[in-house]
Amino acid sequence: MRKILILGAGRSASSLIHYLIAHAREQDWRITVADKEESSAARMVAGGTEVATGIGLDASDTQARGTAIGEHDLIISMLPAFMHMDVVQDCLRLKKHVITPSYVPDALWAMDADFKQAGLVVLNEMGLDPGIDHMSAMRILDRIRREGGTMEAFESYTGGLVAPESDDNPWGYKISWNPRNVILAGQGGAAKYIRDGATKYIPYHKLYQQTVRVEVDGLGAFDGYANRDSLKYRSHYGLEHIPTLLRGTLRKAGFCQAWDAFVQLGCTEDGFAMELGANATWSDFLDAFLPHCQECATRENLANYLGLEHQGETMRKLDWLGLFDGRPIGIAGRSPAATLQHLLEQKWKLGPTDKDLVVMWHHFRYHVEGQHQSIHASLAVIGKDQTETAMAQTVGLPIAMACKLVLNGELQDRGVMLPLKPVIYEPVLNELETLGITFHEEEVEV
Amino acid sequence: MRKILILGAGRSASSLIHYLIAHAREQDWRITVADKEESSAARMVAGGTEVATGIGLDASDTQARGTAIGEHDLIISMLPAFMHMDVVQDCLRLKKHVITPSYVPDALWAMDADFKQAGLVVLNEMGLDPGIDHMSAMRILDRIRREGGTMEAFESYTGGLVAPESDDNPWGYKISWNPRNVILAGQGGAAKYIRDGATKYIPYHKLYQQTVRVEVDGLGAFDGYANRDSLKYRSHYGLEHIPTLLRGTLRKAGFCQAWDAFVQLGCTEDGFAMELGANATWSDFLDAFLPHCQECATRENLANYLGLEHQGETMRKLDWLGLFDGRPIGIAGRSPAATLQHLLEQKWKLGPTDKDLVVMWHHFRYHVEGQHQSIHASLAVIGKDQTETAMAQTVGLPIAMACKLVLNGELQDRGVMLPLKPVIYEPVLNELETLGITFHEEEVEV
Repeated sequence: MRKILILGAGRSASSLIHYLIAHAREQDWRITVADKEESSAARMVAGGTEVATGIGLDASDTQARGTAIGEHDLIISMLPAFMHMDVVQDCLRLKKHVITPSYVPDALWAMDADFKQAGLVVLNEMGLDPGIDHMSAMRILDRIRREGGTMEAFESYTGGLVAPESDDNPWGYKISWNPRNVILAGQGGAAKYIRDGATKYIPYHKLYQQTVRVEVDGLGAFDGYANRDSLKYRSHYGLEHIPTLLRGTLRKAGFCQAWDAFVQLGCTEDGFAMELGANATWSDFLDAFLPHCQECATRENLANYLGLEHQGETMRKLDWLGLFDGRPIGIAGRSPAATLQHLLEQKWKLGPTDKDLVVMWHHFRYHVEGQHQSIHASLAVIGKDQTETAMAQTVGLPIAMACKLVLNGELQDRGVMLPLKPVIYEPVLNELETLGITFHEEEVEV
Repeated sequence: MRKILILGAGRSASSLIHYLIAHAREQDWRITVADKEESSAARMVAGGTEVATGIGLDASDTQARGTAIGEHDLIISMLPAFMHMDVVQDCLRLKKHVITPSYVPDALWAMDADFKQAGLVVLNEMGLDPGIDHMSAMRILDRIRREGGTMEAFESYTGGLVAPESDDNPWGYKISWNPRNVILAGQGGAAKYIRDGATKYIPYHKLYQQTVRVEVDGLGAFDGYANRDSLKYRSHYGLEHIPTLLRGTLRKAGFCQAWDAFVQLGCTEDGFAMELGANATWSDFLDAFLPHCQECATRENLANYLGLEHQGETMRKLDWLGLFDGRPIGIAGRSPAATLQHLLEQKWKLGPTDKDLVVMWHHFRYHVEGQHQSIHASLAVIGKDQTETAMAQTVGLPIAMACKLVLNGELQDRGVMLPLKPVIYEPVLNELETLGITFHEEEVEV
């Protein structure tokens, strides 16, 4: 029997846990789900108590965490990023394999030799983005290289959105992941990418203006904005000399232009608490960022200040949020970003019957034997329900599938790794396809 | 004999030290100037070696610093802000008065009771801005209150600039203080002020667009942009209920509009090292922030992207910096801000015969006996030469004059303080007037 410990039973862990339970007998697995809230952990294993147990565990309690890790063979950490190093250090000390959807901190790369020597796997970035993006890109990149192609451009965008059948607001958006990250997306420094051999930088206040229009078959038009550091995986992907490399995030067409209104005003700033009275309205919130105008109403002042058409699409989106209706904010003493989040969590709530959508879109341009070639590859996943969301499936299933590779000895590599090699991406992408998580690929004329 | 120690002999300390030397015999002072560079300290006291000594001292050496402080009666710290707390803690332990132009960190306010109990003065913000701004504002505010006036608005702007006779570039600017702070001015969060009772916020990317035009007699037009926190002194000034309060920085008219081009592009960002080749030109630097444009030259691309008139004033200012001439940058691997600083330190250098200019401008609006009144008060100081700059005079002389107040027992207050009371501002402003540092005041019709 092989014992698997899942640390953290948040929303994005449901598909992962359900897969592990479903495959427990066949794989001879015994599963423990540990969460700060014992009730959350218990709910997650409710369908498979003969193979799985939910326990209460404060992962910041060093001793309790170490004890739980010590009793298992493979650890899956779904904990927030700041807990990541604590968990992997325990795993090294207690000689356990670990799989996680988290980014690799620099300090973890530095431990690579230690994990190799201990014969352990630390498989990171094994979710959606990062995760499926790596695997699907590397499969196509490796194929192009096998065929003797030389890469000219790689662009890749991912979005966690709302399914077309549940899309009933003018933003085309509902929140399917961490709402705070939705509001703060793009902050913390300029976005970096390369275009035709030159490194380019986009400051935050221009990020939602410099978008790329992407069409996905059957889903319509999206706008992509650049991620913070598109060059992070340049060497991992073997693209050291590629002239054009850009990674980004997708939103429904028109979203970015409207979101830019908040960015331009300063409504997404998070560094200070606003001085707004307890009865302040959303117009008061906006006024705080607008130049003084004795004569004009907030809506007109805002449209004039930002140069927006008074009856245009962006104003229609702001109207829909109820910003100009005189309604009270209801909270006080928060940052602009946290205040805005309070509104958007209500307005962009994924309802009980709503389904979410995950879209990924890759573009590869290369030349082979003097011919320029281009490939578009796209993935669209619609959630089944509130539990088996597209986000939970695409984040959790690759991790669950990787458990088989690690525990069944199909992965010979040891140390700190990303899912960049065929030995990982082939079986995982193939099994995802059997569940309908399939990339649609087409060659495009150049 | 009273012994005064000056920690830090940078450029802004020259007028301070020269004043202390000039008054040493009459005041029975003995002066020590301590600097990391013994030669700088020696140069500063060259004209008065019978009363003053220059010594080499590494202020970060706790023991050496403590020994030097212990041997004096009054300490003047001209050290960088991050050293401030170390110095005042020494002064408390060794029971020494201290005067400094530095801002008061929160941790220092918390030591107020300790300094009071020890019978010590910690007089802070005693330079130009902060310093003369406090004193000149409080003198007029106190007078308005004595006359029964109620304040409606207070706006105050200060600029460290170049004298009209040395102003020979289209920016109307040369660097008379810390060049890094010139480039980064306004960063680190939204600017905050109040207008007609409402707190307003300006994010950095709008700061140089939301300027106020200020006319100063004989010097022409300036643009003022808001400081980070205009409300910091609201309660210190007794203006808790004032409807309009704004503090800001002055630049020559037109400067802010042109500087905004750098802000919009992202050229003032400081959080990452740019990837530019060793032979990169200033056009390559700008291209890194511009959208890709195969067909257009950098200058046209920039003007189009920012919506600037191709032959307008802002482009003329950028032209003058030589940004489009194909000249190499000469440094690599720095942040955008540090790269730009490298250029501006050359182009905006205050030459050997150049004179600098300090401008301060206050606007007071109030009502008394049903009448609305308005006062403009302005100060303009032109430097004498490269040593007795306007900046060195206005930063250093108030500190030097305060030494007399403290050492001659004319200041009864003890503890952590700013120069907000008549017992400080009256003698200091009066003595500054004898040296030609005089505010011009006029009542304006409302």
